[in-house]
Amino acid sequence: MGQTISKDKAKPVSLKQVQIQDDFWNYYINLVRDVVVPYQWEAINDRVEGAERSGAVNNFKIAAGLEKGDFYGFVFQDTDVAKWLEAVAYLLVTKRDAALEQVADDMIDIIGKAQQPSGYLNTYFTIKEPEAKWTNLTECHELYSAGHMIEAGVAYYQATGKRKLLDIVCRIADDIAVVFGDAPGQIAGYDGHQEVELALVKLYETTGERKYLEISRYFIDKRGQQPSFFVEEADRRGWTTHWNKNKIHIDHEYFQAHKPVREQEAAVGHAVRVVYMLAGMADVARETGDQSLLEACRRLWDNIASKQMYITGGIGSMAHGEAFSFDYDLPNDTVYSETCASIGLIFFAHRMLQLEPNSRYADVMERALYNTVIAGMSRDGRHFFYVNPLEVTPEVCEGRNKNFNHVKPVRQEWFGCACCPPNIARLLASLGEYMYSVKENTVYSHLYIGGQVELMLGETKLQLNQHSSMPWEGKVRYEVTLQQPATFALALRLPDWSSKAEVLVNGKAYTIANVTVDGYAIIDRQWITGDVAELVLEMPVMRVRSHPLVKQNAGKVALQRGPLVYCVEEADNGPQLQQLILPQDSKLEVASDEQLAGGLKVINAEAFRLEIEEWGTQLYRTDSNIKLNPVDATFIPYYAWANRDKGEMSVWVKERV
Amino acid sequence: MGQTISKDKAKPVSLKQVQIQDDFWNYYINLVRDVVVPYQWEAINDRVEGAERSGAVNNFKIAAGLEKGDFYGFVFQDTDVAKWLEAVAYLLVTKRDAALEQVADDMIDIIGKAQQPSGYLNTYFTIKEPEAKWTNLTECHELYSAGHMIEAGVAYYQATGKRKLLDIVCRIADDIAVVFGDAPGQIAGYDGHQEVELALVKLYETTGERKYLEISRYFIDKRGQQPSFFVEEADRRGWTTHWNKNKIHIDHEYFQAHKPVREQEAAVGHAVRVVYMLAGMADVARETGDQSLLEACRRLWDNIASKQMYITGGIGSMAHGEAFSFDYDLPNDTVYSETCASIGLIFFAHRMLQLEPNSRYADVMERALYNTVIAGMSRDGRHFFYVNPLEVTPEVCEGRNKNFNHVKPVRQEWFGCACCPPNIARLLASLGEYMYSVKENTVYSHLYIGGQVELMLGETKLQLNQHSSMPWEGKVRYEVTLQQPATFALALRLPDWSSKAEVLVNGKAYTIANVTVDGYAIIDRQWITGDVAELVLEMPVMRVRSHPLVKQNAGKVALQRGPLVYCVEEADNGPQLQQLILPQDSKLEVASDEQLAGGLKVINAEAFRLEIEEWGTQLYRTDSNIKLNPVDATFIPYYAWANRDKGEMSVWVKERV
Repeated sequence: MGQTISKDKAKPVSLKQVQIQDDFWNYYINLVRDVVVPYQWEAINDRVEGAERSGAVNNFKIAAGLEKGDFYGFVFQDTDVAKWLEAVAYLLVTKRDAALEQVADDMIDIIGKAQQPSGYLNTYFTIKEPEAKWTNLTECHELYSAGHMIEAGVAYYQATGKRKLLDIVCRIADDIAVVFGDAPGQIAGYDGHQEVELALVKLYETTGERKYLEISRYFIDKRGQQPSFFVEEADRRGWTTHWNKNKIHIDHEYFQAHKPVREQEAAVGHAVRVVYMLAGMADVARETGDQSLLEACRRLWDNIASKQMYITGGIGSMAHGEAFSFDYDLPNDTVYSETCASIGLIFFAHRMLQLEPNSRYADVMERALYNTVIAGMSRDGRHFFYVNPLEVTPEVCEGRNKNFNHVKPVRQEWFGCACCPPNIARLLASLGEYMYSVKENTVYSHLYIGGQVELMLGETKLQLNQHSSMPWEGKVRYEVTLQQPATFALALRLPDWSSKAEVLVNGKAYTIANVTVDGYAIIDRQWITGDVAELVLEMPVMRVRSHPLVKQNAGKVALQRGPLVYCVEEADNGPQLQQLILPQDSKLEVASDEQLAGGLKVINAEAFRLEIEEWGTQLYRTDSNIKLNPVDATFIPYYAWANRDKGEMSVWVKERV
Repeated sequence: MGQTISKDKAKPVSLKQVQIQDDFWNYYINLVRDVVVPYQWEAINDRVEGAERSGAVNNFKIAAGLEKGDFYGFVFQDTDVAKWLEAVAYLLVTKRDAALEQVADDMIDIIGKAQQPSGYLNTYFTIKEPEAKWTNLTECHELYSAGHMIEAGVAYYQATGKRKLLDIVCRIADDIAVVFGDAPGQIAGYDGHQEVELALVKLYETTGERKYLEISRYFIDKRGQQPSFFVEEADRRGWTTHWNKNKIHIDHEYFQAHKPVREQEAAVGHAVRVVYMLAGMADVARETGDQSLLEACRRLWDNIASKQMYITGGIGSMAHGEAFSFDYDLPNDTVYSETCASIGLIFFAHRMLQLEPNSRYADVMERALYNTVIAGMSRDGRHFFYVNPLEVTPEVCEGRNKNFNHVKPVRQEWFGCACCPPNIARLLASLGEYMYSVKENTVYSHLYIGGQVELMLGETKLQLNQHSSMPWEGKVRYEVTLQQPATFALALRLPDWSSKAEVLVNGKAYTIANVTVDGYAIIDRQWITGDVAELVLEMPVMRVRSHPLVKQNAGKVALQRGPLVYCVEEADNGPQLQQLILPQDSKLEVASDEQLAGGLKVINAEAFRLEIEEWGTQLYRTDSNIKLNPVDATFIPYYAWANRDKGEMSVWVKERV
C-alpha cells in the first residue's frame, strides 16, 4: 500500500524564492514577459488583427455595466482573463513592472464591478442568463471559471500584496460554500470540469480559511457518487443540453463521474479534467492526510504514466472528448495530446512531489515540460498548438478531415477556445515553483534549471546557485551560501534518461548507489558557504522503444537525448518519412544547429530509406524487390518541430530488425 | 488517347445463356437462393426477430392503400424491395420456382397499386410528403430509387417474360422523361445519388425506346455543369436540409458534381455514387459511341485501380462521406471499403469489358469478387459486413469509437440501411452475366467459374462447358460443342496474379506470347465438337507490396494466391498481430483446412514475432533488446475472416528488411 502521508510532507518552494537564470529557459520566460502576455492582452481585448475574436475583457465590461453589448465567446470565456492575470502575477513576482501592474489593477477593478452582491462572478450568466446560474454544472463550467479566478486572486495577492482580487475571490468562494453542500436548499453536486478543487486549496493555504478546504474536499468526495448528480440536475432541468435544447447525453466517464474518485482504476474521459481533478485530490490529500485519496492519486498516476502517456509527456489519445482512450492505445497521428493536458499533468506531478518525493513524478514533469509544453508555442510567442501530434502528414490532416481536423501541421494564431496559450504562459511564468521542494531537512532539486533559490532550513537561510547546461549537456553545479554552517541533505534527481551519474562535492566523488532513495541521490552532510556540489549525468543518444502492447509503435524506435525527445521532419529528410529505417547499430552523432529555433543540437543518424526498385504506376506488385538505400537522417528536438515549411513529421521511425 | 469505340463492341452474355456449375461458387449461389433471398424477404417484411425494422414492404402496402400507417425507414427504403425483386428475377432465370414467382408477382401487384397516375412511384413521398416530390434531388434519392425499380422491372421481364413490372417501370421512366429536361417547366437537374443512369440504359436496351437512353445521357451530361443544379434547387427550397430544416451544406465533390463528368480527373466523394455513375457513363458511351465519355471512364478507372483501391478490391478509404479520400491514401483500420462500392466497381468493370476487352478490368472484377464481395456475407447468409476493414483490433473499434464506429469486427444482422445484403444477393444471383463477352468472332472468358454457356456466333450455336479448379488451383478446361465446325477465337484472360500460363488445345501447347492481346490469350482456329481447350496457370503464393507512396503499407507485405488475398487472424496467430514479421525468404506452404468456412487452403509461413526481452511495467525503455522469436504464422483467405471468435485481423504484415 505504500507509505502513508508524512506529517512533515515536502513543502513547495514559492516563486518568490527562485530567480531563474538559465541559458535555455530564459528565452521562454522572457518570451512570456515580452511577447506572450502583452500579445494575449491584446487578443483578449480583440485587438489582434486576423485572430479569432475573444470578447473576454469586453464581457467583464458589459457585466460591470461599463459597456453595452452581448456576451461573446464560450461559457468559460472569463478564464482567459483569469489565466492572463495569474500569468501577470507570476511575472510581477520575479520583476515588478508598474505599467503592467496598472493594467492588471484596472482589469481587477472591472472584475470587481462585474461581481454580483452574492459574490457570484461569471459574465456569461450575469449578462445572458442570470436566472439560469448554477442550473447546469454538467456543461456550463461555472465552478471551473470560479477556480481560475481564485487562482488568479491568490497569485496576484502573493505577487503584489494587494488584496482586492483576493477579496473578490474570497467572496466567490464564500458564495460557493453557501450554495453547495448537502444541507436543504444547497446544491449537492460538483462541476463538470474540475479546477475549483485545486484553486480552493490554494485559497485555503493563503487565507487559512478552512471552509475553503472543506468545500474542495466536498466536491471531490461527492464526485461519482450514486445517484448521479448530473442525472439529478438533468431531471430538474428537463434533460436538455445548454447549447441547443436537444436532449443531453451524459457520459459519466467523460466527466470522471462514473465512480467515486477513490474507486477509479484508470484515467478515463477528458484528459485535462482528469489531471486537474488529480491535482486537486493530491492537494486535499496533502492538507487533510487523507490516505485513501493519496492511494487513488498513486493508482491513477501509475495508470497514466505507465499505460496512457505519449513519450512526449502528452496525454489524451482521442480527439472525441479530448480524452483518454484505453491502456496502451497511443495513436501518433490521430492523437490529441492537448498542451493543457500536459500542463495539468505537471500540476499533478508537482503536487505528488510534495506528498512523496520520488523521481518518477519529476521525470514525467520534465518530459512534459521539455517536449509537449514548449512544442505548444512558437519561438515568436504568437502561435500555438492545441493538439500535439507525434506524426503528421499535412495532406492527411487536410484530406481526411473528419478524423484529423483537430490536428494542425502548423501552429495557429489565437484560438476561439484559447485555453492553451494562457496556460503555457502561467506555467512558464511560474516555472520557479516547480524546481525544488523541501522535506524536513532535505532540499530536493527536481528540475535542472539554472538560477538562485533562497530557502529557510529551520532558522538557517540557505542560498543555492544552480548552474545547468541542460538540456544540451548533463552537468549541473550548485554553489552553496549559508549564514552559518548547516547540516542538511541536498537531494539530486537521477533522471530516468541517464544510466550513469556522478555526484561530486567540492570535487570529491560520492558513491551514489549508497545514497540513492526514490530516484534521488541524497547528499547529507554539513555544508558551508562556498561548498560546491556537482552532478554529472551521462547524456547519450538513446533508442527508446515502447511497451510491446503499444500497437502503433511496434517495430519502431524513437531517439531521446537527455530530457529531449527527437523527431524527423520533412525539411531535413524529405517527404515519405514512413520509408525511413533506422538500423539498431547505426552511428548516431550529435551536432549543433545554430540556426534552428534559436540554436539546438540535432542528431545525425546513418539510416536507410526503404525503397522499391523500379516501381512503375501499379498500385500493387508481386515482382518487386525491397531495397535499402543508405541516407543520412537528421533528428531534431520535438519541441522545435514545425518551425520551417509545412511538412511531414514523425517521432517514431521504423527500426531494422 | 487509346482506341475509339468499336462499332462491333463486345456484347454481354445474358444470364439465360449461362448455367454455373462450380465447386466454389455453387455454395454462394445456392446460399442466395436458399437463405439470403428468403431471409431478406422476411427482413423487409419485418419478420426477423432481433433485426432492425425495415418497413420496406409495408411502405408499399400503405402507399397502395392496402394498409394504414406511417412510412418507416430511409427515404430510399423502396430500393430494398426493388433489389430483392431483381435478385429473385435472376434466380428465376436459372431455375423457375413457381412459389417464389408467386410471392414476387404479389409484391409487384402491390407496387402497381402504389404507383401514382403520373407514373411516379416512391412510397416515402407518396405517404409522407406528396407535395414535396422532386424538390430535393440533392438528398432524397428519388431517381436513385426509381433506378433500382427499373433494374428490377427489366430483370423480372427478362426472367419471366411477364410485363407487369416492366410496364410499371416504363411509366416511371416516361414520367421522368416528362419531368426532367431543359424545356420550360422541366427540372434541369439530376439525382444526388447516381443509379438511374445505368438503369435507363438497361430499359432502353430491353424496350428499344430511345428516349430512355436520351434521358440517361441528359443526366450524365448535366452533372457538374455550372451553375450548380443543387445550388439552384437549394435556392428554390430555401437552403434547408430535408432532414431537420437546418441549413444544408452542399459538398459538390461528395456528389461528383464539382465538375462536368468528362472533366473529372480523379474519383472523389461517395464511392458507391462514383462507380454507379461510371457504370452509367460506360453504358451511355457504349450505346452512343460517345468517345469523350469513354475517355473519362478510362481516366477514372485508372485513378481508382492504380491509386485508390485496396488490395481486396475495396474502395472508399474514408468513413466520412463513405468516400474516396486522395491518391495513395489507404488506411487499413479506419477504411470504409463498403461492400456495395466493390459491387459497383464490378458493374463498372463489366461494362468496360464490353467497351474494350482488357484484362485489367477483369482482374479488378475478380479481385473485388473473391475478396471484398464474399467477405461481405457470412457463410450462413444471414450476417453481413457493410464496411470491410483490412486491419481490425476489436478493442480499438469499441474503445475509440468516434473514428471507428463504422468498423465492426463481426458481421451484423440486417441493417436499417440495408443496401449491401440485397446488392450481394443480386450480384451473386446474376454472376453468370459477368463471365463472358463476345466481340465479333471472339469469345472472351473473363472469370474462371465452372459451368455451361451457350453462345451464338453468327448462325452457329456454340456451347462451352467450363471446368474450373479456381480459386484453389489454376486449371481451367473448356469443352466445345458445336452444331458444325466453326472458326472463332477463344480469348482466355491471363490474370495479373500468374506470371506463367500454359494454353493447350486438345493437349497441344500454344505459344502464348504470340497470341496475347490486352491480357488475353487469343486462340483463333477452327473448332469442332469435342475440342478441349485448357488453361494452366501457375498459382504460387505471392508476396505483394504496395506502391511506395501508400504510407500505411510501407515496410509491409500481403500474401496472395490466385485471386485470393490472405490475412492473419487472432484465432490462428494470437493477439498483437502488429508484432508479426515475415522474412522475405521464408517458406510459405499451402495446406488444406477442411473445417474453416466450408474448407479452404491456408498458407503456413515461417515468421517471427517481434518481442522485447524482459519487458516490465514501464511504458518506454531504452535498455531493451528486440528479439525475433520464430513462430508459425497461418494466413487464411480474406473472404473467410471473422468466422471464429471475435479477434484481431490484418491483411498487411510487417516484412523483415
